[in-house]
Amino acid sequence: MFEVIGERINTSRKLVQAAVAERNSDYIIDDVKKQQQAGANYIDVNAGARIGHETEDMKWLIDTIQPMATIPLTLDSPDPAVLEMAFKMVETTPMINSISLEKERFDAMMPFLDGKECKIIALCMDDNGMPASSDDIFGRAKTLVEELNKIGIPTASIYVDPLVQPISTDSLKGVMVLDAVRAIKAEFSDVHITGGLSNISYGLPQRKIINRTFVSLMMDAGMDSAIIDPLDKKIMATIRTADMLLSHDNFCMNYLKGVRSGAIES
Amino acid sequence: MFEVIGERINTSRKLVQAAVAERNSDYIIDDVKKQQQAGANYIDVNAGARIGHETEDMKWLIDTIQPMATIPLTLDSPDPAVLEMAFKMVETTPMINSISLEKERFDAMMPFLDGKECKIIALCMDDNGMPASSDDIFGRAKTLVEELNKIGIPTASIYVDPLVQPISTDSLKGVMVLDAVRAIKAEFSDVHITGGLSNISYGLPQRKIINRTFVSLMMDAGMDSAIIDPLDKKIMATIRTADMLLSHDNFCMNYLKGVRSGAIES
Repeated sequence: MFEVIGERINTSRKLVQAAVAERNSDYIIDDVKKQQQAGANYIDVNAGARIGHETEDMKWLIDTIQPMATIPLTLDSPDPAVLEMAFKMVETTPMINSISLEKERFDAMMPFLDGKECKIIALCMDDNGMPASSDDIFGRAKTLVEELNKIGIPTASIYVDPLVQPISTDSLKGVMVLDAVRAIKAEFSDVHITGGLSNISYGLPQRKIINRTFVSLMMDAGMDSAIIDPLDKKIMATIRTADMLLSHDNFCMNYLKGVRSGAIES
Repeated sequence: MFEVIGERINTSRKLVQAAVAERNSDYIIDDVKKQQQAGANYIDVNAGARIGHETEDMKWLIDTIQPMATIPLTLDSPDPAVLEMAFKMVETTPMINSISLEKERFDAMMPFLDGKECKIIALCMDDNGMPASSDDIFGRAKTLVEELNKIGIPTASIYVDPLVQPISTDSLKGVMVLDAVRAIKAEFSDVHITGGLSNISYGLPQRKIINRTFVSLMMDAGMDSAIIDPLDKKIMATIRTADMLLSHDNFCMNYLKGVRSGAIES
């Protein structure tokens, strides 16, 4: 079944930043509750936006969220020192967001990940920037999986992010990433595919219909996770419906549950 | 680009039946205009529901629609005599709906189609009923394409209908037809894939979100046409958006046109 990584606890969001600055735990707890109720499978926690405060903000967020969270956290930082501290605090196996092939990030993250039990988001980014073709995405994903396997992280714990790019810049950007996902899943059947989706609609109007139509296409190709706002009711309904159509929902149980709770409407 | 066959002019619909019985041409013309404005590429005309009146009703409908239609008609009847009459009336190459492998229908339709210039919808139905597997759908499609080729109908004029079945009866019915469409397109790259979609959601609540999520998955597999209600704004918006995401809309021109006209909303 599809896994939703709830993206809302991120200090780049204005209200979250204010709540963190004021140590307003009620706001944070309420937001996490809403994400859980809406069907999130992980809560992403990113404290990177208040420069100079990341370590203390991350610590406070985990202290605030962990006692009430019913799902695991996704620890989101490029800084291994912050992740090391956060990793020691969590009581449930977390997801780490993220490693990439950018040399500085890769070299910092590999020693941190070595020997850890966790799930890891692997971005198909390197020092040349965004991937330029399906083969490029596939090649980067393959390198990341193989390198992570070498330090003991099993393929089934790896969440490849193929890096969705705007279709407004090139009408082939959709099929490029769809083809890449198919190739990655053909090579590594156990690997997960995740990522943000909203880049696909960058520069275009009425972005939400693009994002939710795209998630169903990505799911058909093999995406089984996404970093999204679980409170976006329409994309959540599309995900649950596509999961059913792709045979991941026996007897349509989750779909029917969604309709009964009001989460799915035509 | 995706082709929409507008399904509304069908005497099984109550208001259409009444309009046909009363020879209310204003109602019919208004409905066809709306379908055209909404982006239909063909107008399906089915006069089968008033028993004993099909020939005269079909004749009246064509006489009514043809002078104002800006797109071709889809002549929809199982009766070759009705189709023969209708075929002689139309001035633009029509689409015929439909042939199947049911012996009686096949034997009646093949002599009618022999030598005709038309597009033809080919249903993957035979005397054993609905197809039971992807291979079954593929095998029936292959037979239909090969038989139609023998009487001079090129593959590019054939619209295979793989026969969508309810997911409520079996959670594999979605992937069954998706896999079949991929196999058919791999074997016959020129063939079109069409059909109704609403069977997928039969027996489930909130059917429209299922139908429109499914159309995007079917388009990813290779469906490039569907028999739908063009006045269903949400499914039309999904089709236009998926067409863009699947690289069939250079510079997002049709998508942007749809947003500007109000046809596409998030």
